[in-house]
Amino acid sequence: MANTNPARGMRDFLPADVRKREYVIGVIKQVYESYGFEPLETPAVENIETLMGKYGDEGNQLIFKILKRGEKLRQETAGERQQIREADLADLALRYDLTVPLARVVADRRNDLPKFFKRYQIQPVWRADRPARGRFREFYQCDVDAIGSTSVTVEIEVISAVSTILRRLGFTDFIVRINHRQLLTSMLDAAGVVTGMQGDALIALDKLDKIGPEGVAKEFLERGIPGAQRLLELFASFDGRTDGDKIGLLRDFVGSDERGQAAIAELSTIITLSEGEVTIDASLARGLSYYTGTIIEINVADLAGSLGGGGRYDGLIGMFGKDQIPACGFSLGLERILVVMDERGMFPQEIADSAPADVMVTVWSDETIQESLRLAQELRQAGLRVTVYPEADKFGKQLKYADAIKVPFVCILGESELADGNVTIKNLKTGEQQTVARNDATRSIRTG
Amino acid sequence: MANTNPARGMRDFLPADVRKREYVIGVIKQVYESYGFEPLETPAVENIETLMGKYGDEGNQLIFKILKRGEKLRQETAGERQQIREADLADLALRYDLTVPLARVVADRRNDLPKFFKRYQIQPVWRADRPARGRFREFYQCDVDAIGSTSVTVEIEVISAVSTILRRLGFTDFIVRINHRQLLTSMLDAAGVVTGMQGDALIALDKLDKIGPEGVAKEFLERGIPGAQRLLELFASFDGRTDGDKIGLLRDFVGSDERGQAAIAELSTIITLSEGEVTIDASLARGLSYYTGTIIEINVADLAGSLGGGGRYDGLIGMFGKDQIPACGFSLGLERILVVMDERGMFPQEIADSAPADVMVTVWSDETIQESLRLAQELRQAGLRVTVYPEADKFGKQLKYADAIKVPFVCILGESELADGNVTIKNLKTGEQQTVARNDATRSIRTG
Repeated sequence: MANTNPARGMRDFLPADVRKREYVIGVIKQVYESYGFEPLETPAVENIETLMGKYGDEGNQLIFKILKRGEKLRQETAGERQQIREADLADLALRYDLTVPLARVVADRRNDLPKFFKRYQIQPVWRADRPARGRFREFYQCDVDAIGSTSVTVEIEVISAVSTILRRLGFTDFIVRINHRQLLTSMLDAAGVVTGMQGDALIALDKLDKIGPEGVAKEFLERGIPGAQRLLELFASFDGRTDGDKIGLLRDFVGSDERGQAAIAELSTIITLSEGEVTIDASLARGLSYYTGTIIEINVADLAGSLGGGGRYDGLIGMFGKDQIPACGFSLGLERILVVMDERGMFPQEIADSAPADVMVTVWSDETIQESLRLAQELRQAGLRVTVYPEADKFGKQLKYADAIKVPFVCILGESELADGNVTIKNLKTGEQQTVARNDATRSIRTG
Repeated sequence: MANTNPARGMRDFLPADVRKREYVIGVIKQVYESYGFEPLETPAVENIETLMGKYGDEGNQLIFKILKRGEKLRQETAGERQQIREADLADLALRYDLTVPLARVVADRRNDLPKFFKRYQIQPVWRADRPARGRFREFYQCDVDAIGSTSVTVEIEVISAVSTILRRLGFTDFIVRINHRQLLTSMLDAAGVVTGMQGDALIALDKLDKIGPEGVAKEFLERGIPGAQRLLELFASFDGRTDGDKIGLLRDFVGSDERGQAAIAELSTIITLSEGEVTIDASLARGLSYYTGTIIEINVADLAGSLGGGGRYDGLIGMFGKDQIPACGFSLGLERILVVMDERGMFPQEIADSAPADVMVTVWSDETIQESLRLAQELRQAGLRVTVYPEADKFGKQLKYADAIKVPFVCILGESELADGNVTIKNLKTGEQQTVARNDATRSIRTG
């Protein structure tokens, strides 16, 4: 028998799942639009060179690549060959995030877009990662980005939008942490970590939450990176301090380095203007290599990993076009949000309870199908969602089916109802039923 | 400089495009739901064996295949090899339609689904076709299917649903044609076409609209298929006849063949119960090989190709599971619908005119950004969509940007407004402006 599973790490969404997903996506869209962001969609498939080299070595490995077709594939595989390289076999690849395609579109369509382009994009991405709890090979990102301005207003509005979304979904306990790539560089300089080692140092630092200070110190040691002690002392000195205190400590730590001081000033402005929405976490690093300024991450305590992250990437669009255009954005992870909402039971009752229709119409006999179909159309025209039992069948079976799909009402068109121009309306929750004139059916259902 | 184009045959959708697409998708969803269909989503990526062999030889060629990864790929390409086959290199593939994944899910999740499962699914599919006007390599299908019943009620409800959608979108001139696979077989039998030649005969017959009777006769001749004359005479005899007449002619033509007579009876019932919605086209064949009963196609005169098609496929689910489960559905082609609506100017004015926000708030200086952000939040809390100009800039430039993005109102927070607790509201359509107390800003915008 054929394998009927979805592909590894991918999921089928039955109606109850789709309704939950659409509820969350609906809230996200509505809030993004209330901030003036506009929808953009890009293809699932990109030219392979658009994606390669944008996500680091690990990213390159995790990109799903699409086999060349027809003559082009034959040229690569025909005849005797020593060894075939992956790069020769694929010309297309699946979207890996929504930021790189945005950068490509902005470079491509600059003249069709406003000077400041504020877009949101809610689409799936694909990564050939090892599947794990909450980690899938197809998952949705809900991105919001503002293109064209270096002002911290952008950071503040992006943070405000995603925080509003989380609150509207019912989250009260999330923490928005911010840091700055230039501050990280400046801190590492001050700690004596040379430029060539800073990438490795950031990877180690980023694990502080998971492996603790001892773990980080060990990683620095193993990789032969100096400065762990100074950095860890700095972070330890933040304990129990306000953001104002942290800013002072950071200013002292980076000393006269102008880039570091400018980054601290930006973070300080964001904290003030965000009015309590964010907190500084000077050890936050974020994996993706394209960030150049502020970096942002949102977490809740009961989820390993983040609900989303983002930051400023003023260099990425220039990799595609002749103009260097500043940009800043944030990506909410739909799957992570859904996992937490499911575990905490955060969905509104009407989403959890929803039925495929408001009413089911029964079918008495093959000869009366037309009357059932007509009644269904009348009820639909009155705005109800109506399903018709598809065939003449025993009444008990029809009612059992209505129960199984959880419709609240059944319209019974039996022999006597048909003879008298009536309908019997059965309320499946209360078990009550009443026979009314066909014209009154909608009103009777509406009033319960 | 990097190539910034989307991949061949694929498209980026800027905000105005997305709004049109979402408008049409919104109507489709609402109508499908009013008929009691529930949403289903399946992954973009399927195991390759799920798709291969389901769409005929040409289909197999057009499926996008995904390269194996890591060790599995190395095993296939390492060392000296004679020739590498496509089948060895790929383990996954991109979704080619929405029907085969549905059949897989139904076989996989039978116990989680109701006895009659009515689902809709609106998702993209990918085909490595040669791109042409209106033919893309990534395109959306809007499918509706009912699983579990052999009753023609299913055909009638599916036809009613898609017709309602087209009418609600503003189409008044579409034609729903129906035919039946068993009738086609019976007709070909009666015309003396042996079973082994019927596939080729159907391919030729399907082109009747395009190449005319002479063309079809020529194709029959070239392929050595008999019976063209008899079939073409039958079709010619339909000219100007009612469906009732055609049914009589067809009954005579297939004679005592029970399968043919049963198919005609089904078509006849569908015509009666659809109350004028459909017409018989005995030469309609439809390409896909999985249909087993009624076949349906919807066309408008100004579009080569159809707006959608569908039919009954009682054998497909049995290819995946142990149970043979009857099914019937229809697929509306979103891209085709959009092409015709664009050409005919069928979109509502508010979709064509839509702006990214209702209001833009200006920024007077770096020191007053916070006041602009707060005003924006107040307006959002009152339900308006609000964008903030991202930086302190000359007023003229801020207003020019507001004009460019077509927001109808600008809230000016200048020096005097800030001093007096006021806002100046400028209506960009009329050019009028008035200064009001900040508390009255929302009301003033709402009233125009």
